[in-house]
Amino acid sequence: MSHPDPNDPGLLDATEVSLLSDLYELTMAASYHREGLDRPAVFELFVRHLPPHRSWLLAAGIGPALRLVSEMRFGKAELAYLREIGFEQDFLDYLADFRFSGEIAAMPEGSLCFAGEPLLRVTGPRIEAQLLETLLLNQVNFQTMVATKAARVVLAAGGGEPGHGDRVIDFSPRRDHGIDAAMKVARCAAIAGCAGTSNVAAAQRYGLTAMGTMAHSYVLSFRAELEAFRAFLRAFPDRGILLVDTYEIAQGVRTAIEAARETGAALRGIRIDSGDLESCARRARELLDEAGMTETEIIVSGDLEEVRIGELVASGARIDRFGVGTDLGTSRDSPVVNGVYKLVADADPDGEWRGVRKLSAEKETLPGPKQVFRRFSDGELAGDVVAAEGEATEGEPLLVPFMEGGEIVREETMEQMRARSGASLRSLPEHLRPPEPADSNYPVEISPRLRSSI
Amino acid sequence: MSHPDPNDPGLLDATEVSLLSDLYELTMAASYHREGLDRPAVFELFVRHLPPHRSWLLAAGIGPALRLVSEMRFGKAELAYLREIGFEQDFLDYLADFRFSGEIAAMPEGSLCFAGEPLLRVTGPRIEAQLLETLLLNQVNFQTMVATKAARVVLAAGGGEPGHGDRVIDFSPRRDHGIDAAMKVARCAAIAGCAGTSNVAAAQRYGLTAMGTMAHSYVLSFRAELEAFRAFLRAFPDRGILLVDTYEIAQGVRTAIEAARETGAALRGIRIDSGDLESCARRARELLDEAGMTETEIIVSGDLEEVRIGELVASGARIDRFGVGTDLGTSRDSPVVNGVYKLVADADPDGEWRGVRKLSAEKETLPGPKQVFRRFSDGELAGDVVAAEGEATEGEPLLVPFMEGGEIVREETMEQMRARSGASLRSLPEHLRPPEPADSNYPVEISPRLRSSI
Repeated sequence: MSHPDPNDPGLLDATEVSLLSDLYELTMAASYHREGLDRPAVFELFVRHLPPHRSWLLAAGIGPALRLVSEMRFGKAELAYLREIGFEQDFLDYLADFRFSGEIAAMPEGSLCFAGEPLLRVTGPRIEAQLLETLLLNQVNFQTMVATKAARVVLAAGGGEPGHGDRVIDFSPRRDHGIDAAMKVARCAAIAGCAGTSNVAAAQRYGLTAMGTMAHSYVLSFRAELEAFRAFLRAFPDRGILLVDTYEIAQGVRTAIEAARETGAALRGIRIDSGDLESCARRARELLDEAGMTETEIIVSGDLEEVRIGELVASGARIDRFGVGTDLGTSRDSPVVNGVYKLVADADPDGEWRGVRKLSAEKETLPGPKQVFRRFSDGELAGDVVAAEGEATEGEPLLVPFMEGGEIVREETMEQMRARSGASLRSLPEHLRPPEPADSNYPVEISPRLRSSI
Repeated sequence: MSHPDPNDPGLLDATEVSLLSDLYELTMAASYHREGLDRPAVFELFVRHLPPHRSWLLAAGIGPALRLVSEMRFGKAELAYLREIGFEQDFLDYLADFRFSGEIAAMPEGSLCFAGEPLLRVTGPRIEAQLLETLLLNQVNFQTMVATKAARVVLAAGGGEPGHGDRVIDFSPRRDHGIDAAMKVARCAAIAGCAGTSNVAAAQRYGLTAMGTMAHSYVLSFRAELEAFRAFLRAFPDRGILLVDTYEIAQGVRTAIEAARETGAALRGIRIDSGDLESCARRARELLDEAGMTETEIIVSGDLEEVRIGELVASGARIDRFGVGTDLGTSRDSPVVNGVYKLVADADPDGEWRGVRKLSAEKETLPGPKQVFRRFSDGELAGDVVAAEGEATEGEPLLVPFMEGGEIVREETMEQMRARSGASLRSLPEHLRPPEPADSNYPVEISPRLRSSI
């Protein structure tokens, strides 16, 4: 008997994640097992349509998702629960020995991706491939959503352009959807080019730069702003960033300068979290420069996203860094990437691939395993072709092997993923850079062989 | 030295969750520690404004969040990392012995909550209370968002009304923001009144009903729809729910009837995932009734949310259950609950509370510990008063003790939380029931004593 606990904290270990699955994956798998239907099959993960307000996606989440796949096992507690809810012993015996043994190809993290393009392709025994569906979608959909949003914010802040460097910090943990989300948002933000994160656990786990300042409650905890600033600089003489808007902003900046002088600390930065950020930052810069603190950074925060950041940058505001929380972590203006995981081919008894397509109203699927080819012109995106796997096509193939025979064969460093994202963003033509027009379009063709198979 | 891994699956255990914190919580705490500033303080978690398209919130996430708080410890690896990024040994020694020793009061899960009302209040030594901020916001913000959305969907489906029962199933794991989100969405959906979830891990952990049907890929894996349906009913003769829209829907229903007759299975239900759900459900009901299968349920799915479900219910469509995924799990039309965690009082050296307020532009905070009182009229919500803690006020006090001296003193069963949600939703006056007018408003007053303290 399982012992449910309605207040359980909900943390799962690698084995428990095997049940992070829609029930139907398991019922379908049980039926396939019963019918002996376990020949190789191919599933592809893709979006049918781009989300509203998005003209491209930045693929993300593959690395951690494949680790979860490679560690996926059904332990005793999981098997006992499945027995309890009616699964038969034969199938439970199959699950007891489960481990994914197939192939996974994917667009590496930081790749640009468009509608209709598989961003991940699973080839393996049908039951195994079926059992990965929920976990892969759960991880790749939301991480691709977040990396895309982060990339838009980074672009707006001038990231990727020479001389601009990294200007965006992930401040999102308080608005992310739980613990796993907070970890992965920080990671996706880093892949997309952000400078660091306020999330200490993610900084530790992923080797990111932990960044932070102070809250208003800190300033309110002392009798005067000056006392608060002095105390903070005593504790952090080389990296104090002081929040100057608890009372009046210009006075807050003067007080920060005074506190730095008194304590002999280097004032690393000041943060402004309210008011008219442009004029406040301008005034703060004047005051800091007058005080000779030309190296002191100005950080702004408060419901920032790519449109507002773009306006601030265009205004010439003297802002060094943008702390972005809610909008980055939740992709508030477009909070869903609707990726699906569809059977596109299965092997007949002779081992020949048979393309599978679905005919439901408005939900057609192109049959057969696919590859995506991308052409560039003068370093800019020029057009993609979705082709049949193995079909000779001009351009760079985007899906590359990540797992073979159930083993991970490709893992990338953070530097590689960040470099790819940077190159991806630089390759965007002007009409695909935010704020892009609503009718911005990028040509994705279907290859002749694929078209003829419909 | 920490050993970061850019592809780590990101799973945290209870100890590792201690670093799921914005860096500034730790830097502020380190400074408080250095200054000996650790007298009791009160922090309150509340929203300043309701999110767009919401006229109330359903509080959720308290139970699991408080378990995480009660288990919060800094282990060796966490301390080593904090040392690495520059924290001093004195503070690390403090963290090594950390455990929360204070009080937490909260609105129990399933309570209705409005702007300006503390839904959770933490009283304890300042450093301890500060260190809970990120985790509490990370958990309570998104779970309250999801429970609110789920409650809206349940209301639209007629949940809570006599004779309607539970008609909504959580189908969201593939669109939820990661693993923790999927677990907590299923739990919040259950609290809000949903009938079950497709998420097997959440069903196991929280004692929910696991529900599922089949995917289009299952039907496409057989040479004919009839073969697929037969195979599924052979495996699940007492609980087969067949997806009938892979090819043509009316024919799919006929085929499902035929498969059930041939195999002698009870056809528990059919699912329709595309097309005009109202007319398709009507036709399906006719065909099933003609075949004598009056008990067979009709389940619909496909980008459903409260508006569409309300229309379907109003149309008199013969639908038994609604599978709701994306919109339930992401609260797509209003994907953020902007809860904040603010210092409202601290003890002076004599142990007297001193109200703390913040004056930043448009971000004022009312000083002092508070209580929320609610009045009813004929079972309907009649008005709330936010009062000073201890101020005699008419109505039912909503914040109740959950932790005392660091120990959890209140935990509720799923039945209690569901019952409270049901009562909450029944108490909503007509103008607060979705689809409510944009200017719907519920009176929340500030008590005389609290007003005089501003």
